Amino acid sequence: MKRQIEIFDSTLRDGAQGEGIAFSVEDKLSIVKALDSLGIAYIEAGNPGSNPKDLEFFERVKHIRLQSAKLCAFGSTRRRDIEVEADANVVSLLKADTPVVTIFGKSWDMHVTHILNTTLEENLKMITETVRFFKQKGKELIYDAEHFFDGYKANPAYAFETLKAAAEGGADCLCLCDTNGGAHPALIAELTTRAAEDFGIKIGIHCHNDTGLAVANSMFSVDAGALQVQGTYIGFGERCGNANLSTIIPNLQLKGDYLCIPEDRLSLLTPIARQIAEIANINLPSGEPYVGMSAFAHKGGMHIDGVNKVSASFEHIDPETVGNERRFLMSEVSGRTTLMSIINKIDPTLTKDSPQTKAIMEKLKAMEHKGYQFEAAQSSFELIIRKELGLYKPFFELEQYKITGEQPALNNMESATAVIKIFVDGKEELTAAQGNGPVHALDCALRKALVVFYPSLSTAHLTDYKVRVLEGKDATAATVRVLIESSDGEDVWTTVGVSSDIIEASWVALVDSIEYKLTKIHEESKE
Amino acid sequence: MKRQIEIFDSTLRDGAQGEGIAFSVEDKLSIVKALDSLGIAYIEAGNPGSNPKDLEFFERVKHIRLQSAKLCAFGSTRRRDIEVEADANVVSLLKADTPVVTIFGKSWDMHVTHILNTTLEENLKMITETVRFFKQKGKELIYDAEHFFDGYKANPAYAFETLKAAAEGGADCLCLCDTNGGAHPALIAELTTRAAEDFGIKIGIHCHNDTGLAVANSMFSVDAGALQVQGTYIGFGERCGNANLSTIIPNLQLKGDYLCIPEDRLSLLTPIARQIAEIANINLPSGEPYVGMSAFAHKGGMHIDGVNKVSASFEHIDPETVGNERRFLMSEVSGRTTLMSIINKIDPTLTKDSPQTKAIMEKLKAMEHKGYQFEAAQSSFELIIRKELGLYKPFFELEQYKITGEQPALNNMESATAVIKIFVDGKEELTAAQGNGPVHALDCALRKALVVFYPSLSTAHLTDYKVRVLEGKDATAATVRVLIESSDGEDVWTTVGVSSDIIEASWVALVDSIEYKLTKIHEESKE
Repeated sequence: MKRQIEIFDSTLRDGAQGEGIAFSVEDKLSIVKALDSLGIAYIEAGNPGSNPKDLEFFERVKHIRLQSAKLCAFGSTRRRDIEVEADANVVSLLKADTPVVTIFGKSWDMHVTHILNTTLEENLKMITETVRFFKQKGKELIYDAEHFFDGYKANPAYAFETLKAAAEGGADCLCLCDTNGGAHPALIAELTTRAAEDFGIKIGIHCHNDTGLAVANSMFSVDAGALQVQGTYIGFGERCGNANLSTIIPNLQLKGDYLCIPEDRLSLLTPIARQIAEIANINLPSGEPYVGMSAFAHKGGMHIDGVNKVSASFEHIDPETVGNERRFLMSEVSGRTTLMSIINKIDPTLTKDSPQTKAIMEKLKAMEHKGYQFEAAQSSFELIIRKELGLYKPFFELEQYKITGEQPALNNMESATAVIKIFVDGKEELTAAQGNGPVHALDCALRKALVVFYPSLSTAHLTDYKVRVLEGKDATAATVRVLIESSDGEDVWTTVGVSSDIIEASWVALVDSIEYKLTKIHEESKE
Repeated sequence: MKRQIEIFDSTLRDGAQGEGIAFSVEDKLSIVKALDSLGIAYIEAGNPGSNPKDLEFFERVKHIRLQSAKLCAFGSTRRRDIEVEADANVVSLLKADTPVVTIFGKSWDMHVTHILNTTLEENLKMITETVRFFKQKGKELIYDAEHFFDGYKANPAYAFETLKAAAEGGADCLCLCDTNGGAHPALIAELTTRAAEDFGIKIGIHCHNDTGLAVANSMFSVDAGALQVQGTYIGFGERCGNANLSTIIPNLQLKGDYLCIPEDRLSLLTPIARQIAEIANINLPSGEPYVGMSAFAHKGGMHIDGVNKVSASFEHIDPETVGNERRFLMSEVSGRTTLMSIINKIDPTLTKDSPQTKAIMEKLKAMEHKGYQFEAAQSSFELIIRKELGLYKPFFELEQYKITGEQPALNNMESATAVIKIFVDGKEELTAAQGNGPVHALDCALRKALVVFYPSLSTAHLTDYKVRVLEGKDATAATVRVLIESSDGEDVWTTVGVSSDIIEASWVALVDSIEYKLTKIHEESKE
């Protein structure tokens, strides 16, 4: 029988303290739905006392019917020397009208005397009275013992007195917080055991990642008896972030004897991580355990060879368990196995030793040297293979393009104009288009010219455009790599261009995108 | 007396297996120098058997005089059923001519029988004979026991037999590898202790981060007796990366009783991390413990208030110890404390309640809404404050610029031309410049026009140029944010521009960069 662990997500509260993170009310509602669909037990969604906008959120979230999650509002103990009812923060917390309230209080004597400027005795009263107030209002109450481990190091007896104060107020859970992220797993385990024994109340753990130990510390606390793990789903949070729940959940559930979310939700771990990253407008780090793009990406030749023979040889779990997938990366080091699988897609008769294969490898190396990377742009690589194999038929010829941009702009919207002249089967098409900037104008002009000859192109459009400056030191003369993602509603493909001129780099990727689509149509019509 | 721990960096070998990582020979030489200056004990720099380009590197690196680091070449045990001397990989390793050789061998029976397709007995011979061969050639030999922990789980006796085989060959260090990154800290500690007791040889630890535990696992191994920690300096590596040395070193040295690098090098931890990220052309994750941009960045109002009173209240160490710095972030949640410190730099008489302060806040919000972010572009923010306070004097007026670009280019190098007309104190300057792309041409033309009036501008130049596409879904019509970093050899400043036209966004950031420099000169001349 697996032990049930409550997962408590604070992406919307502690996570919002991360640099570069800002959620609109709409964003917060979307994230609540995503976390709930995963089977998270508690969602801490805001601090109405410090962020008045949160009250609007709590009003609107009431209209969402949650499957499994309970919503929490977060706030501090009452201020010193006033009645609980008179504290504006406490009043806001009640207004949020959530079933669960998280109250944090001070465990570290120095914080009491130097930050709050009050007495150790008054701090204990603040804790007990605030906790009791919310219990009397019928709330489930989680008490967050801020800086518990640092507080213990400074004054062990007092740190435990603050927990006792919360217990006396009637707290349902005592959560031990490593607020500054500097505690050692051994201390975390020791104090978790002791707190569980002393109070007989559910113990929670809340870790920060300032020493890269938030995941380990959370796990050690669970092994020592904690029943609730607080964190943020993909590790957002102040400074180095909070404990990353997308790592902790599978660590506990797949490798330990614990149940964190329903078994049938494990395969949502990766898609939900990517969805939250997208809502937050943050690139999910590719090396994120379990859920990152690279988490099961193999590049070394021996690793690829091994995984092809026995997948467990270089994978600690099956990637599909957590909704992720295995990838083989192209690179000169990866050897030819990966390359061959792409080459054989186009010509199944070629082998590693074919002269054509060698020519493709040479071409690849030369282009990587110029700054090309095909790991994320396999479609451009496939076009190179076709060109080297003589299987490539140019769909048009560029005679010339010319772009102009100016300020002040001719009108508000379109600051650039592109003129383009192409030939298709000897027929000339000269046209022009305006756009928001030169790349947009050029994109519009090229499509306008080509759709005359290839009407099916109208189903394809660009879905993403990325620019990466390769050598920042040359500043505006630096080489840039442009990645373009395109879609025709069925497939998605990515192409790449490199140049010190951003227009030219974009042009190369744009042409590849169009040629890839036309090649696809051409191949399908042959079948 | 602190225990000395050898730090073994594999950024150039295992790190190069990370997705998106590719080093040129020049890059590798720069990284060797950087790691050596930090006092790293071992630098594993390549695998000459699998990557022939590495031999060029090993030839060139001989001309670098290293202060503290020993270079290692990495390779596998000999192939099955041949003589050691006849193995091409072994021959390449000798050719690399390094004082130290790292040999990896199989500890997991399944790998021996299913991946290498040989017998358990032959694998032991392969280990002993390869190790002995390099010892007879006078090398210091580190034996990497690949998959040691997974191997132990499958067949404990055999895993230890492989270590014995390496010990019999004369290995100087037995390094236990958690190759798939799935081992638990308790197992790591237990087997480290046992290996140290069984063989009386130096034990090393090599962890991967697939479960987010690589740092914890390395530390548990050290506490259990390991004397060498292998990893990569900022965590590069296959899949989820290797153990991050920039976290482990300060964890062991500042919080444990260990010495990893000379005490006086600790303050290089952050600058070297940023240098290596720059060479690898990777953004160092901002939340990286100790060395990330956000590692000591405070955003929550209560945290900023606390740190202002007692810095230890929300910081686990003093950021300067590791060469990092404290930052207060601007955001609506952080309240006005941070903004006030910047506003007061320009006008010390303003308070939070001044109407000018409120006007600045309004302006800031409106610009953030458009996509501006000032966290990384404080100089642009300072110019906004000056404009709002009426302290801004425009140094020039733009009448018009016009850029043209075309393909085929007029000549190979310069594909774009910019024409610009500006006024300074009623005097007109009309000029033109060519460049690699429209932004470069415009940058050159503006400087050419302005230096006529402001000769001191010639000391300032751009040092970095970054482009971020904000809404990829609008593809080439998407809004872009351009960040420009400039330097005059004394100061470095960063400015920002946002537009759906990349030329215009670059222009805005460029103008801010120049105005900031001219304002600085103007202010200094008043003093």
